[in-house]
Amino acid sequence: MWKAGRWRRCPSCPGAGSGESGPLSRSKGGSDMRVLVLGTGAVGTVVAREMARSEHFHQIILADKDVQRARSLAVELGDRRFQAIKIDAGSRSEVAAAARGMDLIVNLVVPRLNLVIMEAALDAGTHYLDTASDGPVPLPGRVDVYQQMALNDRFRSRGRCALLCMGADPGASNIFARWAADRLDTVDSILVRDADVSTVEGVPFATYFSPDTVIEECLQPPLRFIDGRFVQGEALATGVETHVFPEPIGPVTVYAVSHEEAGTIPLHIKQGLRHCDFKYALPDELVNVLKVLRLLGLDRTEPVDVGGMSVSPRALVTALLPPPADLGGKVKGWSLVGTLARGVKDGEAREYFAYTLNAHEASYAAVGATATAHQVAVPLVVAAELLAEGTIDATGVVLPECLDPEPFMARLPGRGFPIYIEERRSRRVKS
Amino acid sequence: MWKAGRWRRCPSCPGAGSGESGPLSRSKGGSDMRVLVLGTGAVGTVVAREMARSEHFHQIILADKDVQRARSLAVELGDRRFQAIKIDAGSRSEVAAAARGMDLIVNLVVPRLNLVIMEAALDAGTHYLDTASDGPVPLPGRVDVYQQMALNDRFRSRGRCALLCMGADPGASNIFARWAADRLDTVDSILVRDADVSTVEGVPFATYFSPDTVIEECLQPPLRFIDGRFVQGEALATGVETHVFPEPIGPVTVYAVSHEEAGTIPLHIKQGLRHCDFKYALPDELVNVLKVLRLLGLDRTEPVDVGGMSVSPRALVTALLPPPADLGGKVKGWSLVGTLARGVKDGEAREYFAYTLNAHEASYAAVGATATAHQVAVPLVVAAELLAEGTIDATGVVLPECLDPEPFMARLPGRGFPIYIEERRSRRVKS
Repeated sequence: MWKAGRWRRCPSCPGAGSGESGPLSRSKGGSDMRVLVLGTGAVGTVVAREMARSEHFHQIILADKDVQRARSLAVELGDRRFQAIKIDAGSRSEVAAAARGMDLIVNLVVPRLNLVIMEAALDAGTHYLDTASDGPVPLPGRVDVYQQMALNDRFRSRGRCALLCMGADPGASNIFARWAADRLDTVDSILVRDADVSTVEGVPFATYFSPDTVIEECLQPPLRFIDGRFVQGEALATGVETHVFPEPIGPVTVYAVSHEEAGTIPLHIKQGLRHCDFKYALPDELVNVLKVLRLLGLDRTEPVDVGGMSVSPRALVTALLPPPADLGGKVKGWSLVGTLARGVKDGEAREYFAYTLNAHEASYAAVGATATAHQVAVPLVVAAELLAEGTIDATGVVLPECLDPEPFMARLPGRGFPIYIEERRSRRVKS
Repeated sequence: MWKAGRWRRCPSCPGAGSGESGPLSRSKGGSDMRVLVLGTGAVGTVVAREMARSEHFHQIILADKDVQRARSLAVELGDRRFQAIKIDAGSRSEVAAAARGMDLIVNLVVPRLNLVIMEAALDAGTHYLDTASDGPVPLPGRVDVYQQMALNDRFRSRGRCALLCMGADPGASNIFARWAADRLDTVDSILVRDADVSTVEGVPFATYFSPDTVIEECLQPPLRFIDGRFVQGEALATGVETHVFPEPIGPVTVYAVSHEEAGTIPLHIKQGLRHCDFKYALPDELVNVLKVLRLLGLDRTEPVDVGGMSVSPRALVTALLPPPADLGGKVKGWSLVGTLARGVKDGEAREYFAYTLNAHEASYAAVGATATAHQVAVPLVVAAELLAEGTIDATGVVLPECLDPEPFMARLPGRGFPIYIEERRSRRVKS
């Protein structure tokens, strides 16, 4: 088991502090952590359900622009710790006002609002957790992960922790990377691989997570760390290959996709690291849809004039697709997120593939959501618990690969987040 | 050459009259016809240029919601007969007011406004010309050609002619059908075939005619007349085959598309007709785009809520694509529209393929537009001239296959609308 206060001070994060976060008053069997959850979509719903099962949280405010959705969730939970409010998550003052007196903001809205919400956390003096940025590539109108990391000193000086990208991937994938690196002397490659082999019943087309995020990350030029240098590829064209996943996924076509892991892991895990990328198994139909959206400019967020109205093409596309929160129970199949780390240990080539695998049907039975939402929510709630306990006691802006992986590896499997490890050792037979 | 007043009274159009239209005062070398042209997009621009070259028109009002576009066109023509006004073509009273004192409304806006504009023509007592309906299939919110034909009695009683579908296809294709049927004793099949083998420079994706119309007609269930019965097919799936067009087009994949010819020609050309359909050569990329638009619901015209605004998905898609009027000079390649008629003459199997073929580059040099716009505009202007002269003297609602084809066949080739005839005769050698 882990010990409290084992947060790893990462040599490449000179600004990040340790052991300086303000104490939380503890209650029996948990803490008195008070949480403001922004967004009650697919992930927010599972986060709320997982928090309801935990004794670490004293008060949870569910905030959404659609207050009815937040209210229904609070009513369904039937737990006096929960309340629902309406919020405009794009308003710093509104978020800061709602966060006043709370210990933690959990940000589960679109990444474009991350900086506004981090500012609100600083205003209110709370910790901050999110599951994704707009990626590792600076793009106009987007919030890349480096912009968020630049707030490190301000969170440190407030004695608060902003833990970024703390879902499945990024999130557990970064934890897996650190866990494997800890077992290697030198690390050649860290390759994150994500596959979903599923069908959605009753709708002509759907994405498993936010359509806006799918479009954003799949159409950004993918950042990869190749031969020790960051290079940008071409969306839906770079690094296309067949990757053989563990059963029941098997061999599928993967694409280099713009994802935070490739941008942050090489900053924090050294040990001779030369390659880091993220590849996602995209079904042919989705790739085709994305290419047509791009061809017609329907992926653009900048508004165009439609009969006198100023409309964002992407917002319209998103409005036409079923929200992921409505997909639970309709998705059948498997979701796998894993990290492949290759390196050397004691002179032998060694490779770890650490992964999680969930059936959508099982996740729906367990938490009323897809495996995708389930896999994002559980690491986030575990991280919130570790913050509440003080096991994570860092201050500043922190990425998951900078944390001690052991508390996560120990606790996740008991929370519906199974972890599998494949290990391969290769050596030359001595003559 | 043709004689005035040779309009064919079609036995299947009991309501259509002949020789009853009000006289137009004639001027030397032409007439005093006064025309209100609604819409100055790609086709409207060529129509205006062709009218400027004709002595049949005494006054031409160019009306557009974008008055600047209409004004630029009038200024460019430098012809005192032209003036430009702003109009809302969806307002019956506004159109009727503008048409007061005119002889003819030429409707070149979206077909969904056809009925409103026909009502305005009745209010103002003018003739009416258009180039397309929303097709032959009754669909909610659309104007099918039969709804327009239902105004026959009212146009007759006003002594005015509403000539529908009078462009290239429908239009010249219907004229070709009648011309071929006139040369056959019995007609087995009338098959309209349209192909455009072109590239568009400088834009990632474009349609040669109104994107709205492309989406509408390609995604409607295609109506076909098969074995003497009207049947509906499946959009982008029915009747897909390779059709060998004359050079330089050659063999291309064609699709059954919802088009007026298949719905009206079997009503008006009998002679034992058993098959009539319309097939269009659609490039793979366009078919793919259309299928994705349909999959995502982006083809829908019914508004959806986008952040509090009510937006028609199709209107947004259309707003993102280059308007056809902007494509002149960028399109390189060929456009072919033809009608294949198979039947029997004097006991011999005989087949005619009458077609027109234009190079986009040549059309741009001649009229500053694509061949597509050129091919639609010329038959319409010739029809307006025939109305002005009294050569067409029908009243009521008339389809082009009900007209004497000879005046068109004689006049079109001299107006940049070349006509080619392929004739094939087959007979069994007597023993």
